Amino acid sequence: MTELSPILAQADSNLTASLERLFDLVRIPSISTDPAYKPDCRKAAEWLVVALSELGFEASLRDTPGHPMVVAHHAAGRADAPHVLFYGHYDVQPVDPLELWESDPFDPKVKDLGNGRQVLTGRGTSDDKGQLMTFVEACRAYKETAGALPVRITILFEGEEESGSPSLKPFLEANADELKADYALVCDTSMWDGETPAIAATLRGLVGEELTVTAADRDLHSGLFGGAAANPIHILAEVLAGLRDETGRVTLDGFYDGVEETPESIKASWSTLGRDAHSFLGEVGLSEPSGEKGHSVLELTWARPTCEVNGIWGGYTGEGFKTVIAAKASAKVSFRLVGTQDPAKIRDSFRAYVRSRIPADCSVAFHEHGASPAIQLSYDSPVLTKAKSALSDEWPKPAVVVGMGGSIPIVGDFQTYLGMDSLLVGYGLIDDRIHSPNEKYDLVSFHKGIRSWIRILAAL
Amino acid sequence: MTELSPILAQADSNLTASLERLFDLVRIPSISTDPAYKPDCRKAAEWLVVALSELGFEASLRDTPGHPMVVAHHAAGRADAPHVLFYGHYDVQPVDPLELWESDPFDPKVKDLGNGRQVLTGRGTSDDKGQLMTFVEACRAYKETAGALPVRITILFEGEEESGSPSLKPFLEANADELKADYALVCDTSMWDGETPAIAATLRGLVGEELTVTAADRDLHSGLFGGAAANPIHILAEVLAGLRDETGRVTLDGFYDGVEETPESIKASWSTLGRDAHSFLGEVGLSEPSGEKGHSVLELTWARPTCEVNGIWGGYTGEGFKTVIAAKASAKVSFRLVGTQDPAKIRDSFRAYVRSRIPADCSVAFHEHGASPAIQLSYDSPVLTKAKSALSDEWPKPAVVVGMGGSIPIVGDFQTYLGMDSLLVGYGLIDDRIHSPNEKYDLVSFHKGIRSWIRILAAL
Repeated sequence: MTELSPILAQADSNLTASLERLFDLVRIPSISTDPAYKPDCRKAAEWLVVALSELGFEASLRDTPGHPMVVAHHAAGRADAPHVLFYGHYDVQPVDPLELWESDPFDPKVKDLGNGRQVLTGRGTSDDKGQLMTFVEACRAYKETAGALPVRITILFEGEEESGSPSLKPFLEANADELKADYALVCDTSMWDGETPAIAATLRGLVGEELTVTAADRDLHSGLFGGAAANPIHILAEVLAGLRDETGRVTLDGFYDGVEETPESIKASWSTLGRDAHSFLGEVGLSEPSGEKGHSVLELTWARPTCEVNGIWGGYTGEGFKTVIAAKASAKVSFRLVGTQDPAKIRDSFRAYVRSRIPADCSVAFHEHGASPAIQLSYDSPVLTKAKSALSDEWPKPAVVVGMGGSIPIVGDFQTYLGMDSLLVGYGLIDDRIHSPNEKYDLVSFHKGIRSWIRILAAL
Repeated sequence: MTELSPILAQADSNLTASLERLFDLVRIPSISTDPAYKPDCRKAAEWLVVALSELGFEASLRDTPGHPMVVAHHAAGRADAPHVLFYGHYDVQPVDPLELWESDPFDPKVKDLGNGRQVLTGRGTSDDKGQLMTFVEACRAYKETAGALPVRITILFEGEEESGSPSLKPFLEANADELKADYALVCDTSMWDGETPAIAATLRGLVGEELTVTAADRDLHSGLFGGAAANPIHILAEVLAGLRDETGRVTLDGFYDGVEETPESIKASWSTLGRDAHSFLGEVGLSEPSGEKGHSVLELTWARPTCEVNGIWGGYTGEGFKTVIAAKASAKVSFRLVGTQDPAKIRDSFRAYVRSRIPADCSVAFHEHGASPAIQLSYDSPVLTKAKSALSDEWPKPAVVVGMGGSIPIVGDFQTYLGMDSLLVGYGLIDDRIHSPNEKYDLVSFHKGIRSWIRILAAL
């Protein structure tokens, strides 16, 4: 195995130059959603092609109907080394309101916060230029020191992540053979806190449904018909209430198929994170965990499936009162999925359940609002174990394996189009103000991020 | 007892003149809601004062902040006769859209429909000038023939019924001693059909409530918080679903206190009316009675209490989907009351039930939307029995005792302010197009209406 110390030392001594390269990239205002910046997006992609070519990557710019992709390949020093796909995005969010920025968003600086923290300011310093450059600079230190890379690497940099990634799926599909690797490394997430690195191993999936219950063929007077005519709001309320039992479990047939219990070791590591019901729910004015009994709030939000009603409407909703029995009532319902729960089966089970509760003279119509399976890297997969150990060696506290409540579509797309798991590691912090004025990235995030990738690459 | 035949014969021979008097009144465009017709409203009231005075009533016009009331008193021939208050209203609905009228709404005519039916056309011919004049003309025939009235009569004609009756309650309160009688006769309702007179003996009461359930102090992301944070739409759905059990009965504590079973004889008469679930619900696209099991649709809508959700809203209700857990969810709920159900107790029971279902870290706020008790004339009260018999003597088919789904506020006001039951008898038909263009009143309704009041007055 390659000796790590000289590579890490090389990264340390490169730091000033690494920063300069990141700042060069940040200075290109590659705002993907605004057509006025289309040439800048291309310029950022071209800058990356040059940078990767200089490192020995076979790099090219690939046109799409939108902004171009950057694809680059580099062989490993050993033929039997694994092959990884590294993903990042070079586009950034718009900067308005510009007057709230303390300095020019496209003139990055190192700023001393005075409490021992130095931060890099500017749009994209964190999301995602700073993050992706930790990987590029790790490759540089590796090559400069060891002369080769420890794994075979394909890089994919996207330029439309902040504007809905319209070109991504077709591009993955059209170039699947070229892009497929053993697994993906995605650098677009955060640390647990400034001292604790995090690997996101679970991303809950989602099934979205809208349903409309129709009873009479018109709105009715509740005096003339009340007590005899079906009330669609009542029917809907009964349907929704019946979706969860008194222990908070979802009642749909087969709903828990594919849901695995969280390993005790993972639960134990989560219990040390200081996010109990009191701190987690207290921030939003609540105190009692809802949903399934017997699980911590982190388990409930990271590792358990849910059913939530996201919207409901029907009848008279204005000021005052109207004694109406509505003809229709509607709701939007979503299920968060974990493990190997099958979105299609859950949608079918939901619809069958609802239909079974609708009186014979009423009807229900469904409208689909998307479906994605959960992403779950097996808690004991070698990749996860190695990355966790590598990160724990670099940072003051051991790495923690976390779940993500929100979705990262790229991870599902890699699974769908390339049949590939993703390892999500990132060095952002919760106060990076991504998407907001005064975005920053801690100098420590950048520096130790580079060192972390060196350790991970070596471990893989 | 006075011989009825000559009085009825007098009414028959008066008919042409009676019609002329009704048409004089209809010609006055007393549209109460339009300030432009304020002088006409006063003119109609004055016309009635003159007409009643000519009949020997001690009649006067009483100013209010709005349109004037007409109050008139007449002693009975016998000192031990009962005292009745007759109520009607001289104001009418607006006539727009005028172009849809086949003839001038304020130039009434007798029109031959060609199928043996003659109708009186014009605004107010039915609602309520035609109806109230049946009573006035009955009094006329009685006095002209018998020389006296069989009961002591107080008449109250209102001029603001079609514009919300703002002056009525204060007027009843201020003049309670003068207006109080043994019971009220109200002529503002319809026949069951052209051959079957109806007495409305039950009017369901109403309790209106609005509730808002609040969970977190802001809208939450359902990915980040779903499964751990309380969802107010779920809580609301469970609360609403729990209001009725699987047999359709309302579950609130004490809800059925004061609800009496409908007598078998009444149920039997209702079963002959040809309004089964199929015909009643079929008109609005339904077929199965909802609500309490074991009751006919007429019983459900006339004689049973209900709980209906009249509106519901919360979360995201626009196009597409938003993975939000709302901070709040709201509903409007109403209870129709029968018998002696106490609106205040039912409101309290509802609120206690809801509060018992709200998690400790959530809250609920209530907003009151009115309360009125049910009106129920005892099915075996002498007044009802006498009126039923009198009506059955006049019309081809026996009178039927019906319920009213909608409310007639005056009836509750008479109960509240004058402590008096009301007998609701009217001769309108379902096709009278009240409130619409081409309002009409059947000549038979007017003629036999006069004869019916003669019979009822004699019977009382």
